[in-house]
Amino acid sequence: MLTRTAHRTLTEQLAERFAERIRARLLPVGARLPSVRECARQQGVSPYTVVAAYDQLLAQGLVEARRQRGFYVRDIGQKTPPALAGQAQAATENIASEGAPAAAEAGPLPSGSHINATALIRGMFHQASSKPQPGAGVFPPQWLQEARFMPAAVRKVTGSRALQDGSLSYGEPLGDADLRNVLARRLAELNVPARPAHIMTTVGATHALDIVSRTLLKAGDPVMVEEPGWSVEFARLDALGARVLPVPRGPQGPDLDVMARYCEVYAPKLFVSVSVLHNPTGYCLTPGSAHQVLQLAQQHDFHIVEDDTYSHLAPVHATRLTALDGLRRTIYVSGFAKILAPNWRVGYLAAPPDLVERLLDTKLLSTLTTPSILEKALALCIDQGQLRRHAERMRLRLAQARARSVQLALEAGCSFAAEPAGMFGWVETGVDTDMLAQRMLDEGYLLAPGALFHASRQPCTLMRINFTTTQDAAFWRVFQRVVAQSRSR
Amino acid sequence: MLTRTAHRTLTEQLAERFAERIRARLLPVGARLPSVRECARQQGVSPYTVVAAYDQLLAQGLVEARRQRGFYVRDIGQKTPPALAGQAQAATENIASEGAPAAAEAGPLPSGSHINATALIRGMFHQASSKPQPGAGVFPPQWLQEARFMPAAVRKVTGSRALQDGSLSYGEPLGDADLRNVLARRLAELNVPARPAHIMTTVGATHALDIVSRTLLKAGDPVMVEEPGWSVEFARLDALGARVLPVPRGPQGPDLDVMARYCEVYAPKLFVSVSVLHNPTGYCLTPGSAHQVLQLAQQHDFHIVEDDTYSHLAPVHATRLTALDGLRRTIYVSGFAKILAPNWRVGYLAAPPDLVERLLDTKLLSTLTTPSILEKALALCIDQGQLRRHAERMRLRLAQARARSVQLALEAGCSFAAEPAGMFGWVETGVDTDMLAQRMLDEGYLLAPGALFHASRQPCTLMRINFTTTQDAAFWRVFQRVVAQSRSR
Repeated sequence: MLTRTAHRTLTEQLAERFAERIRARLLPVGARLPSVRECARQQGVSPYTVVAAYDQLLAQGLVEARRQRGFYVRDIGQKTPPALAGQAQAATENIASEGAPAAAEAGPLPSGSHINATALIRGMFHQASSKPQPGAGVFPPQWLQEARFMPAAVRKVTGSRALQDGSLSYGEPLGDADLRNVLARRLAELNVPARPAHIMTTVGATHALDIVSRTLLKAGDPVMVEEPGWSVEFARLDALGARVLPVPRGPQGPDLDVMARYCEVYAPKLFVSVSVLHNPTGYCLTPGSAHQVLQLAQQHDFHIVEDDTYSHLAPVHATRLTALDGLRRTIYVSGFAKILAPNWRVGYLAAPPDLVERLLDTKLLSTLTTPSILEKALALCIDQGQLRRHAERMRLRLAQARARSVQLALEAGCSFAAEPAGMFGWVETGVDTDMLAQRMLDEGYLLAPGALFHASRQPCTLMRINFTTTQDAAFWRVFQRVVAQSRSR
Repeated sequence: MLTRTAHRTLTEQLAERFAERIRARLLPVGARLPSVRECARQQGVSPYTVVAAYDQLLAQGLVEARRQRGFYVRDIGQKTPPALAGQAQAATENIASEGAPAAAEAGPLPSGSHINATALIRGMFHQASSKPQPGAGVFPPQWLQEARFMPAAVRKVTGSRALQDGSLSYGEPLGDADLRNVLARRLAELNVPARPAHIMTTVGATHALDIVSRTLLKAGDPVMVEEPGWSVEFARLDALGARVLPVPRGPQGPDLDVMARYCEVYAPKLFVSVSVLHNPTGYCLTPGSAHQVLQLAQQHDFHIVEDDTYSHLAPVHATRLTALDGLRRTIYVSGFAKILAPNWRVGYLAAPPDLVERLLDTKLLSTLTTPSILEKALALCIDQGQLRRHAERMRLRLAQARARSVQLALEAGCSFAAEPAGMFGWVETGVDTDMLAQRMLDEGYLLAPGALFHASRQPCTLMRINFTTTQDAAFWRVFQRVVAQSRSR
């Protein structure tokens, strides 16, 4: 709640709160601010305070007033040429309008459509408060602090002569050889047959996925992506000018009928899949589905990139497309952001031998090489078994957190749209989660509303929760109160 | 020279030598191998040995034989669909043919043209021998070893609590705040007015240039680049599908008449420029040229990205477009690969406030964040003045190396196509440097032939030398001998 202080008026505080959300893109471009009356009620202030706050936002150029319709968030990042301004505004209005027609079930997105996924990324970096953040995509820092072996490993490799010399040239194009060797052994355990020469390190799994897309797709090329899914992937493909074809993801795997139809109509070049502990549902691909997906790929000649970001949280025997396929038309991508240190930004891919050179060219053009200090340190941690033991502890701890969170969520009146597994829960709330997310921000909680996991932003009553940050009864009490308020409106 | 050993026949050695160069792309796709007679003479072996070696390459699929014409390097990275194979081969023949028409002086490259710049990047990583490499793009490791303060700084920051905590989340989207603060001060010394909030760290300057191109250009967009120039830039733009417009670079700056014509005909979106110590010529932009370039940019509404990679080797008072313009329609890019440690991969850009958000979106989609350990360590080195003192020592040492190399080059019968300055010399040899580079590789020296600095690969008698690696009389003796042999053919 807002409280009057000696230094700042309620108006200033309210204006600053909205300004912050607009800059962090938690209020996306084109979103409508609550009506003056509604906002006054929500915040417990007078309508005059709200009008004054909105006026400040208007003066700062963060929102625009539309006659008889209210205040809308302006596009602060991009200057629109005057000639196009009218058009752009019309498009924005169309997107903002709740009456916009739903996308056809198996229809592709128009290329260049407004996929506002940067909102979610920005949200990842938004520190709503010091409370545990249910919308977060990573483990809480306190959990990762247990991996004390990592800074020690960095200090160790920094003292080594080999590393010092290595830093003084550009380093190996494919990435540190020590790391590629231990990764090849790790992949062998997952039945993914990759030689070190077919493994390439990257700046996190994000960079690996970016390199694959840039290598295999050109503007206008159709690409299949699971929906719901990690919207940063939608946004990246959209930014490349690719034509995004969303494939519904079910408990067994992607919807094969929809995929088959896409193949016949659009001849897609690539399918991007999170087979194991799919984000946000937690689904794991079944062997039968995997086999059929690979048959489709064979028949229609497309590549598959398998994003195994949650690899360390899943059992070794989970079904992976790259294992079945033997890296023939599949590319394996993974990293360590979820299990070790998000900021180390060490990821990798393993690719069919005939694709390695092309992927390497893209890496060289995008970042040249990658820094080997962190790669060497990581190789040490993996080689000495520290990562494995750490991952085992984290899986146990996560299982306990999941059990607690699931119980609290059920008690709070939610249900699970997918069997709880892994790091995230896919939760049915019964209310519009975009609206809910805005209200929960007022309470200091960042949510991940379901709309952010869809290629085209639609009202949605689902949300993704992080089991490690939803173990608190306190959160669920606030949640229940806000949901009840939303329902009573 | 090849010498018979107990383990490997001359044929095997010769085949392996060619195979290695083809894999490292030092012999680019479509290049013709020397005729059997010529190769036998160059290598001092019998024609039978050469025929047998070429047969091995043929069997390995590295080259193809064309009736009556000889052996050509195949494209080993990319599988060409059978239907297109004929076409692709025709295109390759056209490129390989010396009789191909020269590109019109101010004509753009066709989009998607074969810019074989990955050859040069691969060459950067090719260890031809333990000798100093005249074609290298960086200081020799022995020079950089003097910066012993760097590993110490890494150890120091790894022990800090702040860093450990920072590693456990994704970190700041724009990059480490400490580094952005010291960079803002450094830029102020160069009269480039950038606030920390408008500075973004990247994975080396390469990543910064890539982010700028991806943000400001879409497939088909025209972009102006200096020629001669760093061909990795041509290749990157080409890979993005941009239309590359090469602008001749002279001692004063880019050719303004050519730029003006491009502006009228193609309305380019971006100009990529190395104003200070231009690569490969060493030219520095004059204030008058800078002013005119900015006027053109204003008049024709294009952005400029200024690549200041050689910043630390140049005087502070050198003219920079971003300083004149005050970062209004210009973006500043630099890094530390040349002065500190190529493998650290810390670069940055400073941008106009209204572009920062869009550039940041591209960074987040391409790598999410960047690792802060190296950024924090670098901030420490800059803040404590270690980098400044190191750069001063390197400039003095480089000046001495340059004086020696210039004298030796002149004595070897070369002349300088540009006044020697900075790290590189742009040297007129009087012979085809592509051919020369292949012959010098046999002697264990990697050269950087002039063709690699042009957007469309043409025979060229220029080469770029690195002053730090051409101070040896031994190199120039071999060089003179090989040049004499080339002339006598």
